[in-house]
Parts: sequence; C-alpha cells; structure tokens
Amino acid sequence: MSAIETIEKGGITSATGFSAAGITAGLKPSGAKDLAVLCSDRLATAAGTFTKNVVCAPPVTVCKGKLEASEGIARAIVVNSGQANAATGVEGTQNALRTADEAARILGEEAKHVLVASTGVIGRQINMEKMVAGISEACKQMSPDGGDDAAKAIMTTDLIDKQIAYKVKLSSGTVIVGGMSKGSGMIHPNMATMLGFVTSDAAVESGTWSKIVKEASQKSFNQITVDGDTSTNDCLIALTNGASEVVADTQEDLNLLTETVTKCCQHLAKAIARDGEGATVLLEIKVSGAASDEDACLVARTVAGSSLVKSAVFGRDPNWGRIAAAAGRAGVDFDESELDIFLGPHQMMQSGQPVEYDTEAASKYMVDASKGEYMSGEDSVIITVSIGGGSGSGTAWGCDLSYDYVKINAEYTT
Amino acid sequence: MSAIETIEKGGITSATGFSAAGITAGLKPSGAKDLAVLCSDRLATAAGTFTKNVVCAPPVTVCKGKLEASEGIARAIVVNSGQANAATGVEGTQNALRTADEAARILGEEAKHVLVASTGVIGRQINMEKMVAGISEACKQMSPDGGDDAAKAIMTTDLIDKQIAYKVKLSSGTVIVGGMSKGSGMIHPNMATMLGFVTSDAAVESGTWSKIVKEASQKSFNQITVDGDTSTNDCLIALTNGASEVVADTQEDLNLLTETVTKCCQHLAKAIARDGEGATVLLEIKVSGAASDEDACLVARTVAGSSLVKSAVFGRDPNWGRIAAAAGRAGVDFDESELDIFLGPHQMMQSGQPVEYDTEAASKYMVDASKGEYMSGEDSVIITVSIGGGSGSGTAWGCDLSYDYVKINAEYTT
Repeated sequence: MSAIETIEKGGITSATGFSAAGITAGLKPSGAKDLAVLCSDRLATAAGTFTKNVVCAPPVTVCKGKLEASEGIARAIVVNSGQANAATGVEGTQNALRTADEAARILGEEAKHVLVASTGVIGRQINMEKMVAGISEACKQMSPDGGDDAAKAIMTTDLIDKQIAYKVKLSSGTVIVGGMSKGSGMIHPNMATMLGFVTSDAAVESGTWSKIVKEASQKSFNQITVDGDTSTNDCLIALTNGASEVVADTQEDLNLLTETVTKCCQHLAKAIARDGEGATVLLEIKVSGAASDEDACLVARTVAGSSLVKSAVFGRDPNWGRIAAAAGRAGVDFDESELDIFLGPHQMMQSGQPVEYDTEAASKYMVDASKGEYMSGEDSVIITVSIGGGSGSGTAWGCDLSYDYVKINAEYTT
Repeated sequence: MSAIETIEKGGITSATGFSAAGITAGLKPSGAKDLAVLCSDRLATAAGTFTKNVVCAPPVTVCKGKLEASEGIARAIVVNSGQANAATGVEGTQNALRTADEAARILGEEAKHVLVASTGVIGRQINMEKMVAGISEACKQMSPDGGDDAAKAIMTTDLIDKQIAYKVKLSSGTVIVGGMSKGSGMIHPNMATMLGFVTSDAAVESGTWSKIVKEASQKSFNQITVDGDTSTNDCLIALTNGASEVVADTQEDLNLLTETVTKCCQHLAKAIARDGEGATVLLEIKVSGAASDEDACLVARTVAGSSLVKSAVFGRDPNWGRIAAAAGRAGVDFDESELDIFLGPHQMMQSGQPVEYDTEAASKYMVDASKGEYMSGEDSVIITVSIGGGSGSGTAWGCDLSYDYVKINAEYTT
C-alpha cells in the first residue's frame, strides 16, 4: 500500500492549523464568490513561483517583495477574482499593498506576512471599498471547513473548483498536503495563467521547502498548457506550518513529502488542463528516449500545445502526422527514424514510419476517454512518444481545442 | 511615382521565360487540380529556404541536396498537393527523386536541376502511377499563361489562390518579379507550413540572389503565423533566369530588386495569413521601440500568434490586456512602463497604463476591417505596439481564430 492516501473531500484547509473563507465581495458583476482568505494559525514557511511575463501584475510584484522581506515566512493569503489587478500601474500596486494591510490589521499580523493574488480581467482597478469590506467579512467567516468556499471564490471561467488533499505517513508521523487551484484559458508552462495554493502541516526547513515546491511545480504546473498564452498573474504559493509537529528532515521523509507535494500539484495542474476553456477531454503526452528530462518535457509541452493536435483530438481524429510535426518543431534535436508514436494502445508510427492501425478503434479510444469520469484517470487521451534511446522522460498535460474555446474567448470582456 | 508597379493578374509566369501548368493528376480525392510544373526556358539561379522542423519531408531533403549539388542552379519545379510526402521514409524519398527524374527526362534536363515540393496529408505515399502520368500531361500543357492554373494546383485547404507580380525599373531596364504561394493552417515563423515560389527575369549573381531571397523571406514568410504549428514541408524557392537581359549589380539596383522581391514575398505571405483556416480578417502587428529588429519581430510574432488575441479579434472585442500579456511573454525584456498599444487609431495603453477609449468605435474598427476588400490593405486589423525607446522595429501578420478553424482542423483526415 502506498504511503500516500487521498483525503476524501480534502482541500486547502485539510492540513492542521489552516482556516479559509470564500465570499461574495461584489467584485464580480455576476455576484458569484470572488474573495478568498486563507490563514494559518501560526507563521508558516512559504515558497512561491511566479509568472515570467515581462508584463507582470502588481500582486505578483508585491508577493515577491514580501517573500523576500519576510525571508520566506507568511501567515495568510488574500485572493480575489473578478479583476486581475494587472496593467493597473501605481494605483494597482497601492491596492495590492492595501489589501494585504487590511487583512494584516484584522489578523493582528505584520503586513509582510500577508500575501495577495488576483485573477480576472486585466486593466481594471479593483473596487477597494468592496475589497476592504469583503476582507473584514471573510476574516469573520474563516474556518477549518472553509476550503471549499475558498476554492470556489478563486474561480473565473473555471467550470469546476479544483481541490485535493493527501495524507502521507513519514517516519515520525502523518502529515497532510492539500491545495486548490484555478485555471481555464491562458495556461502555459512557466507559470502561465493559473493560481495554485498548497498547504501542509509538516515542519520543514525553509530552503528545503523551496526546493520541494520548485520541483513539484516543474513537474506539474509548468507542464500544462491550454492555449500557449501565459498570464501576468500566475503564481503558486505553498505554505507549510509545522502544526502536525512532524519534522521532515531525513532524506527518505523528504522524498516522500516531495512525492506528495508533486502529486498534489499534478492533480491541481491536470484539473486546470482538463477544465481548459471549452475542453472536452484531458490530453496526457508522455515522452521518453530523450537526451534529458528537459528535452522530453519540452517535446511533451509542444505536442500538448499544438493547435492542430488539439483540434484533431476534439474531432476524435487519429491524425498522428500532426503529433510527429509538433514533436519535430519543439527545438529538440532527434533522429526522425527513431520516432515512435502511440495513441492510447494504438501504435501509429514506428521508427519514423506510419504503421497500420485500426482508425475506427483509435477514434473510439478518444470518444471513450471524453466520456470517462471527471479526473478519474479514465478521462485522458494518452499520447506516448519516443524520440530515441536516451534516458530522459517527461509528461505534459493539455486539452483539446473546441468551438467553445473560441466562443468563450471571443466574448470575454464584452 | 514608385519604381515598382503591380502587374495586373500577374503571377509566377509573368517574368520572361517562365512557363507553367496546373492539372488534375488524380492525387486529391476531390478531383481538384493537384499537380503544378513550373519551368524556365533556360537554367536559372535558384535559392531556397526550408522548414526547420526535425521531422522534415523527403521533398525538402531532396531539394536541399539538389541545390547543393547544382550549386544553386535549377530549371524546373514539380509541386503536388494531396499528399505531403512526409513521414514516408525511404519510399517517400524514392518517390520524390523519381518525380524529379520524370520531369527531367521529359524536359531533357539534368535531374539535379529539377526541384520538387509536396503539400497535403502527412504519412501517405503518393500514387506514383498517377504522378508520372500527371507530369507528362503537365509538361505538355505548360505555357507562359499557365501561372494561374499552377497557383490553383498547389492549394490544399486554401480558399483563394495566391499570386502577384511586379515590374521594377532598374538602371539598365525593367525586370519582373512574380510568385505564387499556398498556406492555410499550420503557418508559423521559420518557414512554417507554406509553399512559396518566386520567379524573376533579372540577371543576378548566385550569392547575391541567395541574400536577397533570405532577406525577403525573413521580412515576410517568417513573420506570419496562423496557429503556431510549423510543417514538415515548408519551403520558399526563388528562381531568377536573366531572360530580361537586365543585369542587377549596382547597389542601387540590388536595393530596388530586394525591395521588389520583399514586396512580392510580403504579398504572398500576407495572403496566406489572410486565408488562414477559418480567418475572417488579417491581423497586422507593428512593433517599434525595441533594442533590435529581431526583438521587435519576435514581439510582433508572439502577439500575432496569441490564441487569446486572435479569439478577441474574432469577437471584435478590444481586449488590449491580452495584447500586453502576449507582448510580455515574447521573451524580450522591456520596461512595462514604456508600453504603448494602439488598435487601429485607438490608443488603449500609454506608458503601461490603460487609457480611456471608445469601446464601441474600437470594436467597429475591427468589424469594418473584416468587411474590407480582400487584400486591399483595408482588410487588416492593425495593432501597433511600442515597447521602449530603441530603434528596432518589425511587423508580423496573422489572422483571427474562429469557430471555423476548429471545424476545419477537427475534420481534416476523417
């Protein structure tokens, strides 16, 4: 039996000592929940990964500054949906700082220990009157059962909230790792548009926690793509507060913890890909035989991001030629005569040559996957690509490209 | 008055000494024209630019080899549509060679002087019986009036054939530059899926011609994007045969000739972008203020290729935030506070801040462009981006992302 177990209905507040709330502050015209506050009962070790976009939103800049000032310590995070607070200039920065200040004041915490994140429409200022009132209300409502509300409050065009939690038995006790995320359009490697939050109650040294979070994010959030666009606001913030009183410091425990955080991030990242705007099925691209893991990951991402591959999957059309073409333009050198491609169990290309396969069965494989139960593992179209004899491997996730993607994105602000 | 004039109904056979034919060889199931032969009445100086995809089709490999063997001399080009002859292995290479051999035999020419290009479905072998019969028929039909038929025979999902020709007055006489292209889906920089052919009757030294063609292709075919996918078959081949007996060797003449070839390639490239699968309007992204032209070109291509920008334009939705986000993720460093964005005449962002603009008028600007006459210059949505005080500038072209793109690509092989 695996040391890692899924916690039923688990999420961002499953780990000991974490409370959250998700409320309607009135920032979204729709009246849906739009403000989440997440808080630890004590200071937590914090690590973050942020968008690499040159045009980067004030909350991102503010978070980076706070994590530096606090040397990786935080207690709470305020997240709003509705406005991304991006391209909002000095006023946007002031609003991000004030958001943190307000929460800090209510929580009786130093401002540098309160982080902020925003998602939504770019270029609109947040209504700070509503924000301030909302923070006050959310802080009142915070509870260890508030994870579900929080996960709902950070959604934008997401159809489904994204949450998960695991418990893992370390040598000196059990710790919990949970999280929530939001995604939909504009999802791409290098922290493309998504927000991810992870909590844990393990006691981990700060530098070690940063390394764990970085590795987990590289194998998860950095390997998903919905449409190739990266956002101004992407971030993953992970807090571990030690409330379990279980110290993770042996190599074995740290490996197990890393595996758990990675599993948690992969679930949250895959859920984002599965819920890509207009998506009807999850795409999983497994690449092996590369010279390095980096090369394999790059090929996997390129195939997962190809509009032609994505359209073909939407059409349940086993068009392996597009998979080969996408692999070939990834910027990774390989010998075409060593290229093997499988769609699910159906081999379509061997040593660079097309092989006979049952077109109808291959198409049916994709139809069946699209009918698989949501996030069950049975709802993925799996494409396996081998590009040579190297030991490098990597996986990326994406989704198909449907009419609805275009519809949603043609009508977003208007 | 400009020294460069458009030739009405001009194309690939406008330049002196060029003949062509475009026939139905039966390679396309539809029965549409699918085989073109282009021939000069004498040996011509030849230059080519080819796909950078690792998975590269036999006709590309064969052409590269021939241009090397002939030291940049060619007389004819055989182009088929229907099958791309890509991922077809040794048999595919043999078929590409045999195609050239057959045409060479009929034309009484050395095989190394006959080039080949293919476009269509990947992974299917060409029916060589039909190909051989077709070459024979096409060679019979070749004429100086055959340019239009040839341009039609190279189309795949293109809705409109793409041709243009210009005459330009050099110091010692007038020369003609003409061409044809095909595109539709999978169009991206670095010789993404497209075929382009250019002919000229100027007398130009071989190395100089290569430089001219390279410069022209960088400012045209390498700056268009439809969906980010690059193909296994992309190529631009340009022949100049000296039949005008006008020698271009002074710097002034060479500059004029370069300008004309660039203008020709830009027309052919823009026509490809305008005719991108499902496109309803041409996108033109002009970037200035960059540290270098390369940086500006990269930002322009990234904005032109953003699915979110493309969807917004399809929705006639002036969503400048997506333009800013795409510019920011291009991999070019700039100061966000120096970012200016215009949509047509409407300024949307100044110094990194959103500015007030008339949303309805901006939306109407895009509606009007979509109604503009095809390739008139009035049918483009022009986005102007300035990223700083540098002197680097560049332009890229693309198209919007519509329901029809998805429809066409979801149902291509089945």
